[in-house]
Order: sequence, then structure tokens, then C-alpha cells
Amino acid sequence: MVYTGKIKLKAQGFSDVHDITADVGRVLADSGVSEGLVCVFCKGSTGAITTIEYEPGVVEDLKRAIERIAPEDDHYDHNARWGDGNGFSHVRAALLKPSVTVPVIGGQMALGTWQQVVFIDFDNRPRSRELIVQVVGQ
Amino acid sequence: MVYTGKIKLKAQGFSDVHDITADVGRVLADSGVSEGLVCVFCKGSTGAITTIEYEPGVVEDLKRAIERIAPEDDHYDHNARWGDGNGFSHVRAALLKPSVTVPVIGGQMALGTWQQVVFIDFDNRPRSRELIVQVVGQ
Amino acid sequence: MVYTGKIKLKAQGFSDVHDITADVGRVLADSGVSEGLVCVFCKGSTGAITTIEYEPGVVEDLKRAIERIAPEDDHYDHNARWGDGNGFSHVRAALLKPSVTVPVIGGQMALGTWQQVVFIDFDNRPRSRELIVQVVGQ
Repeated sequence: MVYTGKIKLKAQGFSDVHDITADVGRVLADSGVSEGLVCVFCKGSTGAITTIEYEPGVVEDLKRAIERIAPEDDHYDHNARWGDGNGFSHVRAALLKPSVTVPVIGGQMALGTWQQVVFIDFDNRPRSRELIVQVVGQ
Repeated sequence: MVYTGKIKLKAQGFSDVHDITADVGRVLADSGVSEGLVCVFCKGSTGAITTIEYEPGVVEDLKRAIERIAPEDDHYDHNARWGDGNGFSHVRAALLKPSVTVPVIGGQMALGTWQQVVFIDFDNRPRSRELIVQVVGQ
Repeated sequence: MVYTGKIKLKAQGFSDVHDITADVGRVLADSGVSEGLVCVFCKGSTGAITTIEYEPGVVEDLKRAIERIAPEDDHYDHNARWGDGNGFSHVRAALLKPSVTVPVIGGQMALGTWQQVVFIDFDNRPRSRELIVQVVGQ
């Protein structure tokens, strides 16, 4: 059985981190799937999905680490070619990758107590985003 | 068909890398699935799953690269707020991500000859860990 | 329903980035699957799969970021032990990870307009590569 849902949200870019755990849980409940895999996927090349303990301290720490890995004010060939200034966004998204897959057990994601699913918007402007949540199971 | 198994292990933290290929293979054999996907997932926000050639040299090289990306002795807001000293663990885990999904062909993971599935414990203390192995296929 | 296909290509190593979106699409069409998950997986411990806007500028930017994360000319214990000189390749592949999973909707990957699936060859020599594309769905 396959069930596909969507999450819509507005994000501010510049490593804007959104806790989407409850949203994914709602799609999972709608799916009726008890055991299987849920894949959360970011359409677009300037966002990523991962898990983290979603508390303001760690979120800031993660942003700082990402800034070190691909600094916003570096030279980016993408900016030189296209002039949209979001070369850092594309590099960050390619490194962090667009999806995470989580096992579903008893109708719930098998997350740890302090583990949340997050969307990170790496773009350089506010955007409306559509994330795909797909459940495959029984 | 969906089959869920678990791997229990004790890990030491500080980028402790465990080769879990054989353990995943045992769950796969128990599942009876011949073709499908196996998702290996770390419950908790201070561990990650990836693949690597599991030999002591590369394992040390990977640890050194991770230490450069999110140094243990940096400032972390998480530590300032919660005092548990594992801000670096959370950042590393969010960057490396909690799961890897591998195709199953003929009842085996489609790994390369020198490619092993590993769990990396990023916490700052020894812990008992439970990993989820979920197989979806036929 | 499970369908497994392969992509064969020749890659040059040193972060050689290949757009494989059309190849994955062909496997997907062959599978006949309309809704489900497609997992693209690199057999071998010196390659990775991710998504990116595949244009020459961003591709160069990504290569530069990866060179910063795990520089080619650093010391690697792997090289000291095995003498094959590709310690940097193994570290990069373990960090970027071997697979990406993408939802399939209406027989198409749910990619954004400017989002392509890419294979990155991190080895230090030209190689023939075999990637696994596995579709699970209905």
C-alpha cells in the first residue's frame, strides 16, 4: 500500500529550520499504514530534511556548522553565472540531501524521545514550500 | 511485505564506528524478503548510519573529518542551555543523518565488495543503542 | 511490487558529478510503478548519490565545498596502510552517503523543476560504475 501526502509551509531561508514531526504524523495517520517506511522529501534544490533534537540551542549550533561548511559570503560560480545569489543554498542542500526515510512501527515513526524530523530551508529569500510525505507499507 | 527487526549494541560515543553489516544481514534473512528495500535507522538524535570500507585507517580518517566539521571543543549553545556537553554530538548526527536505505537483491544487500553498513555513535558517553532494521519487499 | 534496474556509466573520479535523472526515469518507466519509492544506490565505498541543480556553476561550487571538507592532499591513515591514495575518496563518500530515496507520483519522481539526481564519483581514477535503481510501489 502506498499513500502520498503533502506538507505546505512558509520558510524564511538562510538555514530556517522547521519541526515537521507532527505534520508527518498527520499524513501517517491519514495513510492508515501501521508498519512500513515513510519518506519525507523536499521538492526543490535549496532545501533538506534531517532529524535533530529540536531545541533553540542545537538549531543555532547546526546553523553555525553549516555556515562553516559552505559560507554564505564565499565565491560561488553559480552566483557569477545566474546572479541569484543563492550558490551557498544549492551547495548546502546537495550536501544535506533532500530526503529522510524513517521506519513506521505501530502507526508511529520509530523516532527517539528527543528526535524530531526537520525541514531546513537554505534559500536566500522567503518561500512557500511543498514537502512530499510518502508512506509504503501495510 | 514488511518486516521489522532490531540491533542492540553498546557504543562508546565520540564517533565510535560499528560495522553492523552482518547484523542487518541476519534481520534480512529472518525477514524472508528476497527483493526490496532495507532501511537501517538510528533511534535517537546523537547517532547516524552510513556505509564505508570498514578498515581502521579509513575509520580514523572519517573521525578526523567529522572533528573538523563540528569540533568537540567549539562553543555550542546546546551546552550553554542544557549543560550536558554533547552539542557537538547533536550537530554531527543532524549532518550525517539517522538512516540509510539499501536495495535488496536475491536476499542480500546490494553492497560493493568493500562497502559495509556502519552505525556511528556521536554522543559523549557510553550508551546502549537500539537500531531499527526495516525491510519492505517481497 | 518491486522492480530493480541498473545504470552503467564511466566516471573519472575526483568528484566527477553525473546527472542520472533521465536514466532513473527510464528504469521507473520500465518498472510500470505509478506510486511508490525509488531508491538510487551506489555499489562501492567511493561514490555517493544526491540531488542538485545540475548546472556547471553549482557543480563546481559543490566540488570546492567537498574539497574543503576532506582535502585531497591531507594525511589519510588509509593511504598509509593501503597505498592506494584514495583515503579522501572514502571519507567523502561516507559523509555524502550512498543512496537517495525519492517519492514517485504518477509514474514520475517528485523532483522540483531545477532538481536533478546525481551520482558523484569520489575515487582517484577512472572507473566503470554500476548503480542500482530499485522501485517499490504499485
